[in-house]
Amino acid sequence: MFRNKLGCYIFRVCNWIYTHKQVKYTKPSILMPQNQWNKKCHHITGYPHISLLAAGFGFITYSLCDMKYVVYADDSQDTRDEDKKANLFDNNLPTYSTSEVSKHSNYKERIWVTYKNGVYDVTDFIHEHPGGDQILMAAGGAVDPFWMLYSVHLNPHVLNILEKYRIGNLDPKENNDNTSDMSDPYSNEPKRHVILKPACVKPFNAESPEQLLVENFITPNELFYVRNHLPVPDIDSTTYSLEIEIEGKSKTLTLTLDELKKFPKYSVTATVMCAGNRRSEMTKIKPVKGLNWGAAAVGNATWSGASLREVLKKAGLNEKDLDKYKHVQFEAFDTDATGSAYGASIPIWKAVDRRGDVILAYEMNGVPLPRDHGFPVRVIVPGVVGARNVKWLGKIIVSSEESQSHWQQNDYKGFSPSTDWDTVDYSKSPSIQELPVTSAICQPIPNSTVTVENGQITVRGYAWSGGGQDIVRVDVTSDGGKTWHVANFEHRDPQNAPQHWSWTLWTCKLPVSKEDKKVEIWAKAVDSSYNTQPESFENIWNLRGVLNNAYHRITVNLE
Amino acid sequence: MFRNKLGCYIFRVCNWIYTHKQVKYTKPSILMPQNQWNKKCHHITGYPHISLLAAGFGFITYSLCDMKYVVYADDSQDTRDEDKKANLFDNNLPTYSTSEVSKHSNYKERIWVTYKNGVYDVTDFIHEHPGGDQILMAAGGAVDPFWMLYSVHLNPHVLNILEKYRIGNLDPKENNDNTSDMSDPYSNEPKRHVILKPACVKPFNAESPEQLLVENFITPNELFYVRNHLPVPDIDSTTYSLEIEIEGKSKTLTLTLDELKKFPKYSVTATVMCAGNRRSEMTKIKPVKGLNWGAAAVGNATWSGASLREVLKKAGLNEKDLDKYKHVQFEAFDTDATGSAYGASIPIWKAVDRRGDVILAYEMNGVPLPRDHGFPVRVIVPGVVGARNVKWLGKIIVSSEESQSHWQQNDYKGFSPSTDWDTVDYSKSPSIQELPVTSAICQPIPNSTVTVENGQITVRGYAWSGGGQDIVRVDVTSDGGKTWHVANFEHRDPQNAPQHWSWTLWTCKLPVSKEDKKVEIWAKAVDSSYNTQPESFENIWNLRGVLNNAYHRITVNLE
Repeated sequence: MFRNKLGCYIFRVCNWIYTHKQVKYTKPSILMPQNQWNKKCHHITGYPHISLLAAGFGFITYSLCDMKYVVYADDSQDTRDEDKKANLFDNNLPTYSTSEVSKHSNYKERIWVTYKNGVYDVTDFIHEHPGGDQILMAAGGAVDPFWMLYSVHLNPHVLNILEKYRIGNLDPKENNDNTSDMSDPYSNEPKRHVILKPACVKPFNAESPEQLLVENFITPNELFYVRNHLPVPDIDSTTYSLEIEIEGKSKTLTLTLDELKKFPKYSVTATVMCAGNRRSEMTKIKPVKGLNWGAAAVGNATWSGASLREVLKKAGLNEKDLDKYKHVQFEAFDTDATGSAYGASIPIWKAVDRRGDVILAYEMNGVPLPRDHGFPVRVIVPGVVGARNVKWLGKIIVSSEESQSHWQQNDYKGFSPSTDWDTVDYSKSPSIQELPVTSAICQPIPNSTVTVENGQITVRGYAWSGGGQDIVRVDVTSDGGKTWHVANFEHRDPQNAPQHWSWTLWTCKLPVSKEDKKVEIWAKAVDSSYNTQPESFENIWNLRGVLNNAYHRITVNLE
Repeated sequence: MFRNKLGCYIFRVCNWIYTHKQVKYTKPSILMPQNQWNKKCHHITGYPHISLLAAGFGFITYSLCDMKYVVYADDSQDTRDEDKKANLFDNNLPTYSTSEVSKHSNYKERIWVTYKNGVYDVTDFIHEHPGGDQILMAAGGAVDPFWMLYSVHLNPHVLNILEKYRIGNLDPKENNDNTSDMSDPYSNEPKRHVILKPACVKPFNAESPEQLLVENFITPNELFYVRNHLPVPDIDSTTYSLEIEIEGKSKTLTLTLDELKKFPKYSVTATVMCAGNRRSEMTKIKPVKGLNWGAAAVGNATWSGASLREVLKKAGLNEKDLDKYKHVQFEAFDTDATGSAYGASIPIWKAVDRRGDVILAYEMNGVPLPRDHGFPVRVIVPGVVGARNVKWLGKIIVSSEESQSHWQQNDYKGFSPSTDWDTVDYSKSPSIQELPVTSAICQPIPNSTVTVENGQITVRGYAWSGGGQDIVRVDVTSDGGKTWHVANFEHRDPQNAPQHWSWTLWTCKLPVSKEDKKVEIWAKAVDSSYNTQPESFENIWNLRGVLNNAYHRITVNLE
């Protein structure tokens, strides 16, 4: 999706250099000394550590001021020429399907990857790869989304190296983005990148490795977590229509996709998070029912579409109706075996609030919504749990009642740690809407070995709070809370609360003693209401394993 | 203040009966069996344990359904006749000043109290008092505010008993509500009830005993915590004026109190809390700078006045100005020795939001604002820390900047536990606006001895969250979190988030084993964003001792 001009440009210029290794890897010609680029910098008020580099091509690069160099987007003719090679079909080489490629994901079978239309055997290159064995994350799949994250690859030198390892072409028929087995309700699922680790295959639910999340403020579509409750519907956008009903009014508004696109187009960059994100940590306390999510059931994207507020107005909703109706329900096109559709609702104040920024999105990061993310239309309810950001939207109902769907009434609710399956009464808890403040450590990964440099290790992660709350501080400790270190913000949305919809990416140079061999790292975030995370999972445990926002704690080995 | 007709009626009908002792104490004639009053009840949807009793006089009584009786307001002619006696000056008895009365607050000096204009020596009555030595809370002061809480007293029988103990009259000159020593800036402070425990006398800062807080959903004005930063200004309401300036516009709007009262009058019931509430618990971890508040630097009142939104509109603020200005500043009439006034600001979105409910209040619980609470006008910013609810309001400035006052810039901000007075940089933290979710146990009080009944003790408290968030659950434990018990809500505001401004009063029958002798009780609340309290003060400690919202933990003895 980022292969279109706009997307490509965005990702090719978002670079941070963290290690000397990486700096060495980039060609000197594409480095720019800080004293030069700093002159072009515009300091964002209040966040002096983040500078905004307007590179003169209509795109921007964020970089940390305390770093020596910024990698410049190499958008030269050389790069574009080399890049084209990967797109070409090489008649002298065999053709492989993605399924064949996927078998080659270990040393025994050799390590194959794809880039655009090329298939490459990179087994013999791995030991030379300046990024080390990170390349193995793409083993058996496409390197394309990783190169969006690590755009240092997009220069003629790297592209030239890659072509040397070419062994074949990707089957052109693979451009059909769907699977083809028609024997079950999941016969027509979209293809997914191999990097997505499924927590469940049918319905498909998967997240990417958490260490990738913090590589970019915007999560590439291919790496964005997928949370499906049912099979993915296959919707023809030319015949698609969205129905809008206001209870008690005889007329219903029906909009085709083209008609929806005639409304003014708004873009909102918002984090979407699953209520079960980080459930695997809660499960360690006591089993819960739910998908075993790690910390990556979350992503941040720029969503574009029509304003729900404006569409509801067009459908006939007046100011004076707002006292009568309490909820806006969403019905989806994905259905279960009995024909029941997925559904959810949000309070009407959120739907019609000028500052609510709720949109009927038809684009994700500049391209049409991928099928897994709701093609052709989903609702984006910024600051609100993923479950209410209904995908494959078919109908909107303005109502005095909440959605009566299973997922609104008997799921996605919080309970006391002492409530069990014998005592639970779903009618007693409100449906989750805004999510509480949370944070997670994404780098290093748990139980990995980290090199201590100058008595410090670098810890990176994300923090976010629902309801449009900003993140005001992230504290990190390596000594069980005796001393806390305030993290620096790598990237944050400049919007203020209560319209701060994006996550904050943070980094912390954490002092450690190499002699410790092992260290436990904790992180906690504070939001603009000065709400903070609870310390442990014991006291927020709940039978469905939702709202897992206790301190994130990981152990790593030091060397 | 509750002696006017409206206030009196409100409090005289808000009754709960918790013990058989109290039930026996009330005359049978004023009891009504549950099977009778239940028929008049209207169950509030979703909260079946709270019933609303419309008593037919235009007022309402909330009661718990699982209680056997509700005390009925006894508004009979008999009561009113007896009540008048306390108002009469008895020429056969001597006259005492409040200062003389206040000396009689222990058994050695004998226990005196006042009620209306009467002075009473109740020393010999204490052992007969059905409420036990709770009466000592009024020793040396007025019983009036307590009788607003425990309106069971307002019947001819009780009033008649009291008159038997009359020993004198309160000096009529005492009606001048001010102190009279003109030798210091605090020479002209209002009189306060002796029950207010001062954390500091000059400026006056005091809270009432926390066990009183939960006796009523509305805190009587006399028991409402006082947080003054400077001497209380003495403002003549007939010459008072409020200035409203919009930066960059040449015209300033000036309103007298009468002119302000010509705007539509709105009432909002909102909890106001000091950022330092519960600081005494944080101090136990490590000293902090600040007043040593207990858990009662909070209260809930009905505030009435003009809408700030409407006043700003009248002053010339347009929709299109909202992008230009970011803050609304408030300047007060209280000044320090250099003439600097107290000041604060709030974000403009809150000031102009239809759902923000910000008012320029001139009434508190149905009477003009008491001097300690901002007479004649203060701003009430529901859901936002007390410090921004500026009292003695003199000027409003719509600005592109925050207030530059000390209290906005260099106070009332949160920091990491490892930030100390050498490293603190106030410019790095945002000013506190919305407060985080919190709760406190008000009954029993710490280290008291509690009688176990049927293997249970009753625990009562409040819970509240800033930003208009509702309280969705309070969990209580007596075994260190192994089992959590969900509290019942005694009283909550029917308004939904994000306009839920009042606290929630809760009660929990907590199973305990009498053999334990001693038990530690913890409480924690969850709000409608499913934010919850942090477990301990260690990890939220901050050098100013604000935002003290860790679990409330108290130890009590069992018998």
